[in-house]
Amino acid sequence: MGTGNILGERFVVVSFGESHGRCVGVVIDGCPAGLEISEEDIQMELDRRRPGQSILTTQRREQDRVEILSGVFNGRTTGAPICMLVWNRDVDSSPYLRILNKPRPGHADYVARVKYGGFNDWRGGGRFSARVTAGYVMAGAVAKKLLSKTLGIEVMAYTKEIGGVVAGELPPEVIRERRYANDVRCPDEEAAKRMTELILKARGEGDSLGGVVECIALNVPVGLGEPVFSSLDSDLARVLFSIPAVKGVEFGAGFRASRMRGSEHNDPYVVRNGRVETLTNNSGGVVGGISNGMPIVVRAAFKPVSSIAKPQRTVDLEKMRETEIIIPGRHDPVVVPRAVPIVEAVVAITLADHAVRAGFIKNVVG
Amino acid sequence: MGTGNILGERFVVVSFGESHGRCVGVVIDGCPAGLEISEEDIQMELDRRRPGQSILTTQRREQDRVEILSGVFNGRTTGAPICMLVWNRDVDSSPYLRILNKPRPGHADYVARVKYGGFNDWRGGGRFSARVTAGYVMAGAVAKKLLSKTLGIEVMAYTKEIGGVVAGELPPEVIRERRYANDVRCPDEEAAKRMTELILKARGEGDSLGGVVECIALNVPVGLGEPVFSSLDSDLARVLFSIPAVKGVEFGAGFRASRMRGSEHNDPYVVRNGRVETLTNNSGGVVGGISNGMPIVVRAAFKPVSSIAKPQRTVDLEKMRETEIIIPGRHDPVVVPRAVPIVEAVVAITLADHAVRAGFIKNVVG
Amino acid sequence: MGTGNILGERFVVVSFGESHGRCVGVVIDGCPAGLEISEEDIQMELDRRRPGQSILTTQRREQDRVEILSGVFNGRTTGAPICMLVWNRDVDSSPYLRILNKPRPGHADYVARVKYGGFNDWRGGGRFSARVTAGYVMAGAVAKKLLSKTLGIEVMAYTKEIGGVVAGELPPEVIRERRYANDVRCPDEEAAKRMTELILKARGEGDSLGGVVECIALNVPVGLGEPVFSSLDSDLARVLFSIPAVKGVEFGAGFRASRMRGSEHNDPYVVRNGRVETLTNNSGGVVGGISNGMPIVVRAAFKPVSSIAKPQRTVDLEKMRETEIIIPGRHDPVVVPRAVPIVEAVVAITLADHAVRAGFIKNVVG
Amino acid sequence: MGTGNILGERFVVVSFGESHGRCVGVVIDGCPAGLEISEEDIQMELDRRRPGQSILTTQRREQDRVEILSGVFNGRTTGAPICMLVWNRDVDSSPYLRILNKPRPGHADYVARVKYGGFNDWRGGGRFSARVTAGYVMAGAVAKKLLSKTLGIEVMAYTKEIGGVVAGELPPEVIRERRYANDVRCPDEEAAKRMTELILKARGEGDSLGGVVECIALNVPVGLGEPVFSSLDSDLARVLFSIPAVKGVEFGAGFRASRMRGSEHNDPYVVRNGRVETLTNNSGGVVGGISNGMPIVVRAAFKPVSSIAKPQRTVDLEKMRETEIIIPGRHDPVVVPRAVPIVEAVVAITLADHAVRAGFIKNVVG
Repeated sequence: MGTGNILGERFVVVSFGESHGRCVGVVIDGCPAGLEISEEDIQMELDRRRPGQSILTTQRREQDRVEILSGVFNGRTTGAPICMLVWNRDVDSSPYLRILNKPRPGHADYVARVKYGGFNDWRGGGRFSARVTAGYVMAGAVAKKLLSKTLGIEVMAYTKEIGGVVAGELPPEVIRERRYANDVRCPDEEAAKRMTELILKARGEGDSLGGVVECIALNVPVGLGEPVFSSLDSDLARVLFSIPAVKGVEFGAGFRASRMRGSEHNDPYVVRNGRVETLTNNSGGVVGGISNGMPIVVRAAFKPVSSIAKPQRTVDLEKMRETEIIIPGRHDPVVVPRAVPIVEAVVAITLADHAVRAGFIKNVVG
Repeated sequence: MGTGNILGERFVVVSFGESHGRCVGVVIDGCPAGLEISEEDIQMELDRRRPGQSILTTQRREQDRVEILSGVFNGRTTGAPICMLVWNRDVDSSPYLRILNKPRPGHADYVARVKYGGFNDWRGGGRFSARVTAGYVMAGAVAKKLLSKTLGIEVMAYTKEIGGVVAGELPPEVIRERRYANDVRCPDEEAAKRMTELILKARGEGDSLGGVVECIALNVPVGLGEPVFSSLDSDLARVLFSIPAVKGVEFGAGFRASRMRGSEHNDPYVVRNGRVETLTNNSGGVVGGISNGMPIVVRAAFKPVSSIAKPQRTVDLEKMRETEIIIPGRHDPVVVPRAVPIVEAVVAITLADHAVRAGFIKNVVG
Repeated sequence: MGTGNILGERFVVVSFGESHGRCVGVVIDGCPAGLEISEEDIQMELDRRRPGQSILTTQRREQDRVEILSGVFNGRTTGAPICMLVWNRDVDSSPYLRILNKPRPGHADYVARVKYGGFNDWRGGGRFSARVTAGYVMAGAVAKKLLSKTLGIEVMAYTKEIGGVVAGELPPEVIRERRYANDVRCPDEEAAKRMTELILKARGEGDSLGGVVECIALNVPVGLGEPVFSSLDSDLARVLFSIPAVKGVEFGAGFRASRMRGSEHNDPYVVRNGRVETLTNNSGGVVGGISNGMPIVVRAAFKPVSSIAKPQRTVDLEKMRETEIIIPGRHDPVVVPRAVPIVEAVVAITLADHAVRAGFIKNVVG
Repeated sequence: MGTGNILGERFVVVSFGESHGRCVGVVIDGCPAGLEISEEDIQMELDRRRPGQSILTTQRREQDRVEILSGVFNGRTTGAPICMLVWNRDVDSSPYLRILNKPRPGHADYVARVKYGGFNDWRGGGRFSARVTAGYVMAGAVAKKLLSKTLGIEVMAYTKEIGGVVAGELPPEVIRERRYANDVRCPDEEAAKRMTELILKARGEGDSLGGVVECIALNVPVGLGEPVFSSLDSDLARVLFSIPAVKGVEFGAGFRASRMRGSEHNDPYVVRNGRVETLTNNSGGVVGGISNGMPIVVRAAFKPVSSIAKPQRTVDLEKMRETEIIIPGRHDPVVVPRAVPIVEAVVAITLADHAVRAGFIKNVVG
């Protein structure tokens, strides 16, 4: 519907706002009534996404104080649409004016200009800025609380890989405890250390890195997902690709599954504590597009940050001739750590939507 | 909407039918009026998906003759909903009755039973059978013709990888010519030969293989995709995960991008024939969720076929105790070659939807 | 979505088929699993809509035998999409060819030709034929059974007015018993007699009549309707205007309410049998867009049948000059009696959709 | 989608905010890029809806200064979602606390309490307050400008009837000029005078009146409307019933059509200035659910204002026993004049949505 800024069916998220406009925000339509929620609940998640928190991230400093404008009364959701936003303050658009006709490689500058006839807000990347994901995080905070309070579902993302360094397999308890313990948001401390080194090296060279975020959702009941086109994996993949810089999504064994044999990949059914489970979890908790009660395991691959300090080839769109661009300002050498709460948010939003759709969460939860 | 059997916004596809029910079909709502289309156009694509065509695929023999029930008049679309179907004929459901209480590992038997309270049609896997994708292919045939006639867009999928054997990089001309030249649908003949050997070996051992299908779309104009949540990559990923057995999706450099540096991954803009292009195509033709005019390149990873001849551990759901299952019948050792036209179909459907959404295709095209 | 042939959110109806094409049908996506339904259940409703049943209606004779093509297994819904259709048989399109360039006043001929670039199926009015409502009735039959089995909701329409003759107020018991007792479907026998006379007179004069259908829904729980834009009255009105020839819709006191005073119109709250009710029902059971537990009362005004025997002024669209048209064939002098089961159907569909949306009906009802 | 606060397909409106919360607002997703729009454009429409403007309306005084928070850059729309709001200031919720357990007859108090489990924001009626329509008017202002700039469409509503006094038929020029010339917004000055007298009399008696608003849309091209379920009349009716207090909607001859004969009601086609028109406009500009190029004529019946000064019977919901209520504060004796700009707004929103859907307005209009 519209032009793509509306997501979901029952727990619906509407994104608005630009990087250098007045604000970035979100409306949730369909959040059940009776859920306790406060600005603090949301702020906690937003703070994890906020820039300027470590030496590894961009220098833009935003307070990013969430304001709930509607839909919450006496500390609880009312069933009405919840509008939330953060105001933009630390904005300097002048560098963008200088490069207006020179699209930055890897950025949306060129396609946005063509698609919107040049009317798009190009300041700070406008709608294509990662800042827009602040809205995802606000909505995700509500979704996380809803899932937790009603079904005990826990959604945890963490940095799985940066610059080729892969975190080892860790049990959920360790992930829960350590994922926000370091600046790279990787619970494997050894890997975290090596990732940090790589990041600092790339920054020193005016270059950037990519990586992989893994997200695990625990206590998801059997039955979420609406095949064939709103399968749980379909909708999770869709929303993950709505995060800037994501270039791949996989579940469970994922691409590796394509090189396995059926006898190796099939997860055998067993009975554990009177409950049907699978012995392994190559499926990543989704079979036939429906959750099977095992942990959801999904990974998103992030390309390296597009804004680098090195000069790059581009085109002057006014003169239609090739030229060079040096992107002004300082940039994150890697987006992966800040993407961790964003991935968590969008996974939670999608699980909440499906939990309502499948009847696991009622219209009134209080 | 509904329970997930409706896809898209303007070129909308509604899937219906079961593996062993009366038919498998599709309704398209939103196909522009005036497009020449015949049952032969659709049959051609269906024939590529049909089982029983080579020694590599299942023995079920369906004529799969498409019937157009509505929406086409005097050989052209009318703007009304197009209902199409194939009747099911070669159906023997008795083997499924025998294993009714023993969910097949890797299949949707268990989750479907829980989700639908045991009322789901379990014969032949019901809605979870790959046979349901016959509907995708019918709709895809219309989408392909629409894209081709109006925008000159060409959508070509082929087998990129089976059992770990990877096809080499080939130019579009070769892919176009050779992809349906062999039973594995791989235009790299050397690789195709090795894939075939692996498949026969796996079959001999009662086992199965997975693989990767790559899809390329040529002549896609700049501007398809509606960020943030209906980005072109979001919607393509969504639909690809609607194909049974897909466990991963990536664009351009994909997961490999997460291990590249920005200076290496960013596609430099250049001017070619008075047109802005990129020198490389690591983005896979999608930047910021919008097509950039370069070929769309997307890959879907298929897990190995779940039905294998070997005995497997499972649970007797009536007695709630562990047991063993031997899946009756003969099975495809690999689904990848038959998935090629399916991938093509769903990519074409999504491109058609976005082309109408973005105004590239009008309501009347005749 | 699409081009308007999809209705609803959770109990979704997709309409397809043309008057003189191969069939008229419907797909329901989102019907809960476990509902007992048979072709007989649907046939009973279809038979009430079928033409050629009395001297008052058109001579086209269709068997209109419903076939369920999917979504039902062992006599129960499975949770999968339900495709149903009737085949067209008694089709003679030649009269329509003769008047192809002369749009019939009051019909959609002209607008359809312009909108669809002349590619629309004009035989028998194509998609604009009242025959398309056979699909509504099939879906409505499922909705009625679903509402009845789960919530005890009963939906009853009847002829309230024809040619200015208005049926008296009657209690639900009488309406239930007598509404299908005569050819005009009016439970007030005196009024029915006068309506019949008027109809025969109009037919004798080559003219036609209009009228009003009233629909009552009993046992609707408090809480159906999703303000502000999917209010229960909004969605009921929307679907009623999807019936050909409807020109007005009103609830409760309706247009008469606009001439009442607040002290007269407000329905006082009282306690009856420990339940909150209203003493009067001027609201028609909907307040603030939400059902209030009182009977839903809605009326649809039908214009007189457009096809009349008298010569009429029109335009030759090829020559762009004024001319006269005499519409060939015999026509219903009034559509209202046959509209009764159609109104019932669409009201039931909308109530079912809202009952699922508001959580009153679960995904599995068996 | 969600819980009903999202309207439309391509020009999509999302409503949020409460009567006594922080603000009332709206998001538009899908407004084409390049449209010149300013806060003044919107303010002009808002001012017409604002309370406290005449002796005939409520005493609540809100500045209602619109703020555009996103989607507009350099004075033009960008193609991104447009968020707009007005802050609430003149708020005193204490009277509502006193009557919290006594639902006001004719209001949504009771149904909202049941539906949302008592968590709804009841202050000032919350989401059920007519104040929420300020959001409709903001979105309508954008829609009106879009329609006007691209297609020359003009949408004009006016008071047709109050308390039984009916305005005479007037040509569009007179309606355009005089509809905002008096406090009742009725271009027939004689009728306006009598309406005013009736209103003052009703107020004096502590009672209220209802009425009818007629809306005319000029220059609507042939072809708007997507049958069968998104017919133009279907979607207009739907949105009109989203305005509080609307109990009936009719097009052209409307309910009166049900008492006409076909020979009288059918609008004959003629050629005027080389264009196909109809001699009369009984259809109200919509045939077969599609605009026919004639003026759209639609009427909405408003019930009398529910809040009256007289004591009324109601129920104490805590004690579940009958009681009496006297609604505190001063109230509008009639809502119709203030509803005029609201009707205009929602009709414009729906026409804009359909104009984009049918391809009459492009994604970029600048």
